Amino acid sequence: MTAAAPERIPVSGPPHESVAWVGAGLLEHAADFLRSPSGRFLLAATPAAGAALAAVRRSLGTAVLAEIAVDDAESEKTLASVAGVTDAAIAAGVRRDDAFVAVGGGVVTDLVGFAAAILFRGVAWNAVPTTTAGMADAAIGGKTGVNHRLGKNLLGAFHPPAVILVDPRALATLPERDFRAGLVEAYKDAWIGDAALADRAAARLADVLARDEAALLDLLGGSVRVKAAVVAADPKEGGRRRILNFGHTLGHALEAAGGFGGLRHGEAVAWGIAAAVEISRRRAGLSPSDAGAVRRVLAGLGPFPEPERDPRRLRDYLARDKKTTASGLASVMLERVGSAMVDETVPLEEWLEAARIMSLS
Amino acid sequence: MTAAAPERIPVSGPPHESVAWVGAGLLEHAADFLRSPSGRFLLAATPAAGAALAAVRRSLGTAVLAEIAVDDAESEKTLASVAGVTDAAIAAGVRRDDAFVAVGGGVVTDLVGFAAAILFRGVAWNAVPTTTAGMADAAIGGKTGVNHRLGKNLLGAFHPPAVILVDPRALATLPERDFRAGLVEAYKDAWIGDAALADRAAARLADVLARDEAALLDLLGGSVRVKAAVVAADPKEGGRRRILNFGHTLGHALEAAGGFGGLRHGEAVAWGIAAAVEISRRRAGLSPSDAGAVRRVLAGLGPFPEPERDPRRLRDYLARDKKTTASGLASVMLERVGSAMVDETVPLEEWLEAARIMSLS
Repeated sequence: MTAAAPERIPVSGPPHESVAWVGAGLLEHAADFLRSPSGRFLLAATPAAGAALAAVRRSLGTAVLAEIAVDDAESEKTLASVAGVTDAAIAAGVRRDDAFVAVGGGVVTDLVGFAAAILFRGVAWNAVPTTTAGMADAAIGGKTGVNHRLGKNLLGAFHPPAVILVDPRALATLPERDFRAGLVEAYKDAWIGDAALADRAAARLADVLARDEAALLDLLGGSVRVKAAVVAADPKEGGRRRILNFGHTLGHALEAAGGFGGLRHGEAVAWGIAAAVEISRRRAGLSPSDAGAVRRVLAGLGPFPEPERDPRRLRDYLARDKKTTASGLASVMLERVGSAMVDETVPLEEWLEAARIMSLS
Repeated sequence: MTAAAPERIPVSGPPHESVAWVGAGLLEHAADFLRSPSGRFLLAATPAAGAALAAVRRSLGTAVLAEIAVDDAESEKTLASVAGVTDAAIAAGVRRDDAFVAVGGGVVTDLVGFAAAILFRGVAWNAVPTTTAGMADAAIGGKTGVNHRLGKNLLGAFHPPAVILVDPRALATLPERDFRAGLVEAYKDAWIGDAALADRAAARLADVLARDEAALLDLLGGSVRVKAAVVAADPKEGGRRRILNFGHTLGHALEAAGGFGGLRHGEAVAWGIAAAVEISRRRAGLSPSDAGAVRRVLAGLGPFPEPERDPRRLRDYLARDKKTTASGLASVMLERVGSAMVDETVPLEEWLEAARIMSLS
């Protein structure tokens, strides 16, 4: 049963209306929240979603047209896997007014969302993230996609889910390392957009790590609200929306340099934030106390594995970032906790130097 | 050189602004019309485009970042071919502010437009159709996509080209059968949306077939104007836009039943229009003289190969049409030349009966 009334957070308006529901126990009542024009659902899920998947399946009952297994490994986030999902849907007799339900981590929501984007040039889909990373980052804002051997998320579409269900109970069996890595993104959202949330969530870090439901609902709900506000102001990532990439400029390079077996995405972003804090101190007027507050939370979420720091190894990955345009590398900096800005004048060398000296303690 | 001032036809406004230029001799001045945020172009073309491709290549000069060969065969319009185009673009160092230029028939514009839609979640593209079918149908309105072994255009995206260049000189070497089949779509646009154009183009059918530039410009420009007006009123094919599918309900089934080696798309649509005219006579008040005017043009564009008429063969293809929703088959009928309507109450049996008796003479 639901512990408290769920919170409804509008993420985007028509023509691609998207709404997030945040509450403990929502999974068991999934049928009351998920949306399909036809009333029929294609349940595309990773078997690892276990109890969360079972709850959604039970709630939807006979409305499930077909169940499609999706591999949650980053290495399987490919165009071929998307073709596998669309093949299975077509074979099951999908119509253009049916909807997908993606249950799993960020790989599953990215991949199934992309499949929904291209099937019949777009069918509806719902996201039921079962990881902290998925709740804080993957489903909100409509960015879907897959990897290419030359870079992450190079292929994809903007296709917001009709509904996003955020239920902290879906996290019950998430391995500790994934749980902590994903939280980096949730705290990141607070840092760029909500000082009061950042303060509360920093004070309750121990409760968050103990998976206390109330503490998680406050942080995850707040993270969704920040993302929704940013995305509403800039749906296609032309300008302001890039502040969501705080920590990602270097983070992506660290992740790529480590290969698929290296740092988790959130861990790489944690290091990327540590470097961005250094640069923000020098260039954006970030105060020592705010920088310290961010670093203390990162340290509490860690310790994280050591990243690649060799500038000769990182340079190419930074230069290749898909956010690069003719006008230069897009760097996100923090002016103070709760407020971020984008700058295209930070030289690549400065990021390499920050990577050499950055610290999480 | 340009014979007369080119006509500028706005197809859609922001955020996906799309404009068509119609004029004889535009290809030689392609660089003055095609658009790329960075000024760099990826030229994706079928070698069959020959002189048209050479003209575009010469005009763009050093602005061409890379040239990518695309197969124009319907059987190659697959997700794997899209991956081939995006692979080549990434290998060439494409950035998100570069733009594709697709030069070729409908297969090329559908496929390259889809590749542009999913690369970096959407880069700009330009369409330079070199077939009558491509000029009248494929590039305008932003429908891009590929085939699936279970049906045509099942995967795709709405991603309008920034610019569409319609130059009748691109048709110089188009084989006669393709030339005539594609014209069916251009006349179709006149029939559903512009009675005066339909009358003029019917009277000048002989000139059109002789590839007279002025007659082609009138018909092709008019076809673009009709499509632009319909698409502007309904960008995502929810309702009114479906009138563009006049002749396609049965046409798609005839095409699929014949297999890839059977009828050309436009030929199947011609038969589909013949059947729709029968049904429009009975259900939409189409007059005998208007029905006769449509049939006479179709006869003049033909003769076309005999289609499949066996209801046992056609039934499954009709039922499987992706336009089928829970509410039934979407049928487009003509009330009079220049005005069409959509109806979801025509039983499938009535289409099968019309297929049995339809005639193009």
